[in-house]
Amino acid sequence: MEIPAPETLKKPLVVPNKLLMGAGPANLSPRVLHAMSHGVLGHMHEETFKIMDEIKEGIKYVFQTKNETSLAISASGHTGMEAILCNILEPGDRVLIAVNGLWGLRAADMAERYGAVPIKMSTLPGDNFSFTEIEHNLKKYLPKLLFIVQGETSTGVHQPIEGLGDLCHKYNCLLGVDAVASVGGVPFYMDKWGVDAVYAGVQKAIGAPPGLTIISISNRALMHIYARNTPIKVYYWDMKVLGQQWNCYNNVRPYHHTTSSSLLCSLRESLSIIAEEGLTEWQRKHDECYQRLKKGIENLGLEFFVKDENKRLKTVTSVVVTDFDWKKLVNYAMNKYNVEIAGGLGPTAGKIIRIGIMGYNAKPQTIDFFLKVLKESLEHARRNDSKL
Amino acid sequence: MEIPAPETLKKPLVVPNKLLMGAGPANLSPRVLHAMSHGVLGHMHEETFKIMDEIKEGIKYVFQTKNETSLAISASGHTGMEAILCNILEPGDRVLIAVNGLWGLRAADMAERYGAVPIKMSTLPGDNFSFTEIEHNLKKYLPKLLFIVQGETSTGVHQPIEGLGDLCHKYNCLLGVDAVASVGGVPFYMDKWGVDAVYAGVQKAIGAPPGLTIISISNRALMHIYARNTPIKVYYWDMKVLGQQWNCYNNVRPYHHTTSSSLLCSLRESLSIIAEEGLTEWQRKHDECYQRLKKGIENLGLEFFVKDENKRLKTVTSVVVTDFDWKKLVNYAMNKYNVEIAGGLGPTAGKIIRIGIMGYNAKPQTIDFFLKVLKESLEHARRNDSKL
Repeated sequence: MEIPAPETLKKPLVVPNKLLMGAGPANLSPRVLHAMSHGVLGHMHEETFKIMDEIKEGIKYVFQTKNETSLAISASGHTGMEAILCNILEPGDRVLIAVNGLWGLRAADMAERYGAVPIKMSTLPGDNFSFTEIEHNLKKYLPKLLFIVQGETSTGVHQPIEGLGDLCHKYNCLLGVDAVASVGGVPFYMDKWGVDAVYAGVQKAIGAPPGLTIISISNRALMHIYARNTPIKVYYWDMKVLGQQWNCYNNVRPYHHTTSSSLLCSLRESLSIIAEEGLTEWQRKHDECYQRLKKGIENLGLEFFVKDENKRLKTVTSVVVTDFDWKKLVNYAMNKYNVEIAGGLGPTAGKIIRIGIMGYNAKPQTIDFFLKVLKESLEHARRNDSKL
Repeated sequence: MEIPAPETLKKPLVVPNKLLMGAGPANLSPRVLHAMSHGVLGHMHEETFKIMDEIKEGIKYVFQTKNETSLAISASGHTGMEAILCNILEPGDRVLIAVNGLWGLRAADMAERYGAVPIKMSTLPGDNFSFTEIEHNLKKYLPKLLFIVQGETSTGVHQPIEGLGDLCHKYNCLLGVDAVASVGGVPFYMDKWGVDAVYAGVQKAIGAPPGLTIISISNRALMHIYARNTPIKVYYWDMKVLGQQWNCYNNVRPYHHTTSSSLLCSLRESLSIIAEEGLTEWQRKHDECYQRLKKGIENLGLEFFVKDENKRLKTVTSVVVTDFDWKKLVNYAMNKYNVEIAGGLGPTAGKIIRIGIMGYNAKPQTIDFFLKVLKESLEHARRNDSKL
């Protein structure tokens, strides 16, 4: 062999146990971890199809929809964003993109690659969008699609979606929502709210490991997809063929791609836990932990980045960097306690720290432990502490 | 909740243990399975970057290349195909596609979606391509890229690649190779053979669970990618940005997407096993098992689909359906022994059965057990057996 075996691979794999309190992924339930340790199944086996069917029901449940086109893409959350834009938009189509953090910018980049015309509607990071403002832009630009983020993790902002579907449909516009960091942790009613396309990473409030994206498409959006004049650019997330493997249309299940039974088993288990506890209880736990975290943060004299509490995303709390060194704080928590606290991202880099409450970590005792670590880390990172 | 919790998710997950002797995925080593049971790591954690760096060295080893642009895409093997076509081809570019089974057809479909002009060069299923024939087409069409499959799983054919790089480069053409089902199990020398782009699913002879695709791009191909006139359509496998997260270029590692540490740990472990045993020994074991399987098949009086032994893919052996009912055979092995034998695929559907020897399953005792199951299943499925 010209290229020798790498010595580094001959050393054992060492993976520390961490408490992941950043913006996701979160820690996994032992049940979900264990589900991955089953032997691999083939992608066309009956047992795999059954697991996929069950996952589909779970996706419909967490999104609160009856859409048959509900499935998981075998890739990271970003591909949900890309799949929605790629399936719905054709070259020249206008897409109105709400930008108040990183994800809107990324969606605009993707839309442009597919030849669509992104129209950016912006607010300051830390704020969300009023329906008046949205309607003004819908009327002015008559876009084919509005893309908006329910839970903007880069700022910790929550965007109300209820009523937005009707508003979009009034202007013959489809509504696409990024619910990556929100669904499971906060209410989401796809059908009631008239959402036409939604996706979410499963490694946040759904409680599964990263690697899959759940997505659902309304019949209204599906009609647009079937009426396209140009082919869908990407085979991998072409809903017309991918939907067949997930048995969304006509009970034929031709081979589309090799799904990962290990990931499917773990997603099935995380959805199973939510089904057993109930979505209302699952969300209540996230809310309870947010209230606990909020009180702790107030007690520490810290300042919320999102001033209006109604606009705060309960799964990701953003705290302003004031009289402390954020890097020192984050590193102290990680090095001493293996606890992850996230820094800012994109427009908020260096300006905030972010604390996630997601899935298995949405437990009062976890928040209490976390607050102790936060307090000690903060003391260590105060700028006016001459001992540093 | 309008949509109630699905009852089916409240039942326990049951996953049978199977022996996967189809065309992949294969069974996993307990070490690889165990690697997935570690707690999740964040995608931007130092430990994750270290695992990614080690995987990169492992990828360079199995492909036998020094290419810095060697990484894993967080998705199934098909995305390797799509990534190569999407990164290299621009609208109007000609791509010569060697079609002797399903994968060439799929590549042509993908290339067309990106606006490229696929030129199909065909042989009968069961045969491979001569260099004379390839050169004739290179000269005639002057394509930007030749796409060819080293191990065509739908037929069990092996395509020689040695020398093909020089031939392509003589006509200013890049060489892209699908090594999904071959690399690890049979020799592959990316640099020596002048291959410009290669990819492989990891769930075959590499011995990892499905969900990741390893890919490597030569500097020659990279120059084409950087000199593009049009943007790369897909953000998710845009090598210019994805390569940064994998530290391929300039030591900055901006966030591109959320990798799955569970899958990365398992891939790292499977590459670690190959590094410890050595690639030569790993391939020798596959060869030894193929010889054992071949003898067993001959003893059973079965007929190989690929007549010329030099053209046979050692990781997937295809057997002609003669005086037996293939569905009955496959179902018997699965129902009685939980042993997977694959039917045909695409052009070979109904005409052959396919037997895979990949990764952890490349062990003499596994082949011996498999041959017993095959013998019994065959007896059960003989058409002239009146007791059926």
